[in-house]
Amino acid sequence: MRALQYTTIGEAPRVMEVPDPDPGPGQVLLQVTAAGVCHSDEYVMGLSAEHYTMGLPLTLGHEGVGVVAALGDGATGFEIGDAVAVYGPWGCGTCRLCAQGKENYCQNAAVQGIRPPGLGSPGSMAEYMIVDSPRHLVPLGDLDPVKNVSLTDAGLTPYHAIKISLPKLGAGSTAVCIGTGGLGHVGIQILKAISGAQVIALDVADDKLELARHVGADHALLSNGDAPAAVHEITGGRGADAVFDFVGIQPTVELAGRMVGTEGDVSIVGIGGGKLPVGFAAIAYDAAVRVPYWGSRLELMEVLELARRGQIGVETETFSLEEGPEAYERLHAGKIRGRAVILPNG
Amino acid sequence: MRALQYTTIGEAPRVMEVPDPDPGPGQVLLQVTAAGVCHSDEYVMGLSAEHYTMGLPLTLGHEGVGVVAALGDGATGFEIGDAVAVYGPWGCGTCRLCAQGKENYCQNAAVQGIRPPGLGSPGSMAEYMIVDSPRHLVPLGDLDPVKNVSLTDAGLTPYHAIKISLPKLGAGSTAVCIGTGGLGHVGIQILKAISGAQVIALDVADDKLELARHVGADHALLSNGDAPAAVHEITGGRGADAVFDFVGIQPTVELAGRMVGTEGDVSIVGIGGGKLPVGFAAIAYDAAVRVPYWGSRLELMEVLELARRGQIGVETETFSLEEGPEAYERLHAGKIRGRAVILPNG
Amino acid sequence: MRALQYTTIGEAPRVMEVPDPDPGPGQVLLQVTAAGVCHSDEYVMGLSAEHYTMGLPLTLGHEGVGVVAALGDGATGFEIGDAVAVYGPWGCGTCRLCAQGKENYCQNAAVQGIRPPGLGSPGSMAEYMIVDSPRHLVPLGDLDPVKNVSLTDAGLTPYHAIKISLPKLGAGSTAVCIGTGGLGHVGIQILKAISGAQVIALDVADDKLELARHVGADHALLSNGDAPAAVHEITGGRGADAVFDFVGIQPTVELAGRMVGTEGDVSIVGIGGGKLPVGFAAIAYDAAVRVPYWGSRLELMEVLELARRGQIGVETETFSLEEGPEAYERLHAGKIRGRAVILPNG
Amino acid sequence: MRALQYTTIGEAPRVMEVPDPDPGPGQVLLQVTAAGVCHSDEYVMGLSAEHYTMGLPLTLGHEGVGVVAALGDGATGFEIGDAVAVYGPWGCGTCRLCAQGKENYCQNAAVQGIRPPGLGSPGSMAEYMIVDSPRHLVPLGDLDPVKNVSLTDAGLTPYHAIKISLPKLGAGSTAVCIGTGGLGHVGIQILKAISGAQVIALDVADDKLELARHVGADHALLSNGDAPAAVHEITGGRGADAVFDFVGIQPTVELAGRMVGTEGDVSIVGIGGGKLPVGFAAIAYDAAVRVPYWGSRLELMEVLELARRGQIGVETETFSLEEGPEAYERLHAGKIRGRAVILPNG
Repeated sequence: MRALQYTTIGEAPRVMEVPDPDPGPGQVLLQVTAAGVCHSDEYVMGLSAEHYTMGLPLTLGHEGVGVVAALGDGATGFEIGDAVAVYGPWGCGTCRLCAQGKENYCQNAAVQGIRPPGLGSPGSMAEYMIVDSPRHLVPLGDLDPVKNVSLTDAGLTPYHAIKISLPKLGAGSTAVCIGTGGLGHVGIQILKAISGAQVIALDVADDKLELARHVGADHALLSNGDAPAAVHEITGGRGADAVFDFVGIQPTVELAGRMVGTEGDVSIVGIGGGKLPVGFAAIAYDAAVRVPYWGSRLELMEVLELARRGQIGVETETFSLEEGPEAYERLHAGKIRGRAVILPNG
Repeated sequence: MRALQYTTIGEAPRVMEVPDPDPGPGQVLLQVTAAGVCHSDEYVMGLSAEHYTMGLPLTLGHEGVGVVAALGDGATGFEIGDAVAVYGPWGCGTCRLCAQGKENYCQNAAVQGIRPPGLGSPGSMAEYMIVDSPRHLVPLGDLDPVKNVSLTDAGLTPYHAIKISLPKLGAGSTAVCIGTGGLGHVGIQILKAISGAQVIALDVADDKLELARHVGADHALLSNGDAPAAVHEITGGRGADAVFDFVGIQPTVELAGRMVGTEGDVSIVGIGGGKLPVGFAAIAYDAAVRVPYWGSRLELMEVLELARRGQIGVETETFSLEEGPEAYERLHAGKIRGRAVILPNG
Repeated sequence: MRALQYTTIGEAPRVMEVPDPDPGPGQVLLQVTAAGVCHSDEYVMGLSAEHYTMGLPLTLGHEGVGVVAALGDGATGFEIGDAVAVYGPWGCGTCRLCAQGKENYCQNAAVQGIRPPGLGSPGSMAEYMIVDSPRHLVPLGDLDPVKNVSLTDAGLTPYHAIKISLPKLGAGSTAVCIGTGGLGHVGIQILKAISGAQVIALDVADDKLELARHVGADHALLSNGDAPAAVHEITGGRGADAVFDFVGIQPTVELAGRMVGTEGDVSIVGIGGGKLPVGFAAIAYDAAVRVPYWGSRLELMEVLELARRGQIGVETETFSLEEGPEAYERLHAGKIRGRAVILPNG
Repeated sequence: MRALQYTTIGEAPRVMEVPDPDPGPGQVLLQVTAAGVCHSDEYVMGLSAEHYTMGLPLTLGHEGVGVVAALGDGATGFEIGDAVAVYGPWGCGTCRLCAQGKENYCQNAAVQGIRPPGLGSPGSMAEYMIVDSPRHLVPLGDLDPVKNVSLTDAGLTPYHAIKISLPKLGAGSTAVCIGTGGLGHVGIQILKAISGAQVIALDVADDKLELARHVGADHALLSNGDAPAAVHEITGGRGADAVFDFVGIQPTVELAGRMVGTEGDVSIVGIGGGKLPVGFAAIAYDAAVRVPYWGSRLELMEVLELARRGQIGVETETFSLEEGPEAYERLHAGKIRGRAVILPNG
């Protein structure tokens, strides 16, 4: 079969011919319908040889949906032909955190060498992929696979961050989203769908702000030094009850720290390398700063349920497998509106 | 001045001439703009002499908004002319619960003889009223007083019940409102504004169901023995994550118990005298059944903020003070759409 | 091998010779070290033929610990020889609740015919038992298996109920335990170990109250009509912040309802058939009444951790498999101090 | 009367003769029984003229207990002769946060010039003091005033920080206290009294570690670069579920960041000027870093209740008002075991 692989440190990914995979005991073989293109792939492909640890060649794709094509011995709970979404942050399944379905925080994954698809294990940018356990599948039902594949990360990641802050986002509250791209434009919709917050979106370009307004932001502002004052004015001096920084570079984490109010939350979601210094007089009292990562099995079910009810949707551009390298180029150039999706069998 | 008073057990309230009140130290005098008419007034006026404990004559009105007309010595925080809403469930201000602003659950009110306006103390259905402390006022700002007076109970009471259940009303959840009158039609709007729940409204008449749909209910069903099966079907067998019973009679509390799902909530809000028997095999596991009452100071601020943002609104019919007795008659006959409001100076 | 089985409706269980079991794909074979005797076995064996649904013969035992004796194909995460505890409330592993490790509330178990060991599937009162998935095992490490086997239900069940109420059991709070037998005497210790509550224990006999004091109860009172007044006096009128009814008969659920304070919790844990009527004026405001059942995978890990730290311990009496019927007789007669444990290979 | 006052920037405080105060409307006059000496007084007296904003002369003392000596007009809820503790973080009483009793986070205090006693308003290190409202008093009952005065800050501040983290400090959890002085040695006791956590105490001197063990720490370690590894070993690799840094200098906040585990909490309590940089790969996932300040009205009631039950106690050294300057010298030199207390009428 064909697969989009990262083969050489520092080079662009390439479409390669690889052997067809077979499911082992307890595993599931999927025929992939769609695979999402993500900034974190770029992050990984930007690592130097010294820091890169995911093996070569690496079949890309940690966002995936497909159809069950074969079941290994003892793999139960699904039938051949079922449409499914892949829960990507694979864990051991038995540790304290996996026992709650928080496999994104598995305590054993690193030690046991368990890696997510596309981030160590062969990913979804191929005609077929192996899923290591039925536990890592969620029924897709009649959801459009192409339009919703990105929810497995670009939906799940903001959803997880937002769910932590939800108790602070009741009546009269305010949320700020910094960055309105792949994750941010879904985050805005999630906030409008399940919280009481007004949403202020920040980005650096007018077309991004237009997208933010289009998906429901109450306010859309340029992400610059004037933004904290604007947030304080909009909130009557209270500041934001939650700030979600989907960019995560030094200027944005510092903006986040200046905009959050007493007892608020700052979630640094984007892997931009920024660090927010937290200490007395440096941030509002009892504002909590954290770095979330992906989400839990339950949260993936919930984010798909939002789509099923029509409460959220992803803006997508589709590409064939052969066009995969181009999709990454356009992403890098900031030209994707919403999320790029690859159709390996399209 | 004129006041609408309950003067004789079992008789209709009457407009009476009473002395103008003067604010004592720490008190505030309001010129009343609007006063809401509530089912619980009816409940009180329906008590026999043996059970009635609120004193006669009783100036009615526990929902009130007005303008500050005078300030007693040491009463600070407001200026003459300020538009304010009255926080009705007065407490001692110093006990463990009042220290959290939960004066609705004051531990000393009963012993110290502290009574809410209109429910023991002189209420808002008069040209002027005394508020015992600035602590019991919330700035109204430019909110329309007539349209929003009912939020002080018909908004605050469902808001308080909903806020307790909010952690259970995230993505993919379902809330049921039984009764879509004064409280219920506000409750539906609150749920849509601040939770992720789909809302199923139940009532006994088609015009009530039409109002429910008008204010945002996703489903509106007749409140009868078929309703539990319908709720289970709509929720794919999961049952409701929260049921708010704004009626509270025996048939409705039993419906509530049959509709709630595992780990859900049942709030018996309406004072209809129903009792839901809770025990093994009688209700879903870990469903929590409770009886909330009114709300906290913070919650009143928050519910007014929802109105300020245009997220909720009350359907109202207005009456002059002289028409007050008629308002109660129409309420009793089930003819009020939404909430009746009396304008004592109108 | 030998197994203690319930073979005929209405008769006492008997030791029978049955075939040795073999683990299928994904399953684990345990050599059983210890099996706990529980009131709910009695409940099950007391059901009429009409209501009994668990199949005959039924190998008893839903509390079990053992040593891994063999692993089916694809069963990973444990090695032969590992000491393990069995998580008993088996679910499907993939539904919304199982995805959180709350298999005790699995949405598919009933439909798919999944039954816990000893309550439909062959249980732990046998020399060997089959566990359907490694997911249902928790490492025991160097914990004494005989002394701790009962934690899998008699520890997990009160722990789950207590954990729900923990946010209400901070500084200055009060918890009441009704019934100080198998579950209750562990519940008291859990409360003292992880909450700020003072504990009031209620039971009907002096030796039970003595056990309650021995395991840490701050107060131990006879469970009768005077108890609510005593609780209100001890709490300065506040009432209990949580009441755990480990008996669950009509008199005890009614006591619970009278003792709980505003915003408190009532958990009806014991399967005594009592029903608490909840409605306006029938219980303190915002007191939540619920019926919990067993516990989650995480909670079993946590309750074992309490034992590992020496914070809780179970009072046990041990019996051989042949003495199993006698253990049930003594339990029925109320003669067990703490918990009875059967040693199938002892 | 005599008062210990800070009179000149950069100089030691002095005992001065000042006029006896009279309570205005709504105010309460206390005869002070005891006043606590705190590191934050030192912090304030260490500010340069440019940064110092509390006015001169300043009567010190933000921890105070006394006896009601006189009541201003309209001041109700207490009687002359009542023993009371002063809630120090005075706010406006009406804003969103004050309405929850969180006056420590009042949104109007700065604008309206409301200052805590001893930190802008005349404090407790005088024979008499004015409390601006009965709302800022909590009944002391028969608690020893001298032994418990420090709970109003040295108890309340750690209690507030701990209460936020309490949901993370259940069975099997671990808390770390950095600094075992005035606040830390109370924090250790609070953790043992109301949480399930094992407590690891860190400090720089053996006598401090001895005090930590004396008040209940399960482990006491030198606060150096080896501490994170020790914490990870004690917790089996999980890391701390909460770290309370009562020192707050750069080395300790960095230690805190290295010791906290996934989903844990870091509270920077001490005003040592340290800043913890939070970002991707710099701290465990979903660890929340915050800066709490003092506590709420409810929390003061709760911390006093812990003392009433004998669950916590403060190690104290007492001084007369004239010895006040010496108390500050000894505090500065690190020679106080626990907390210094001044007896203005002793």
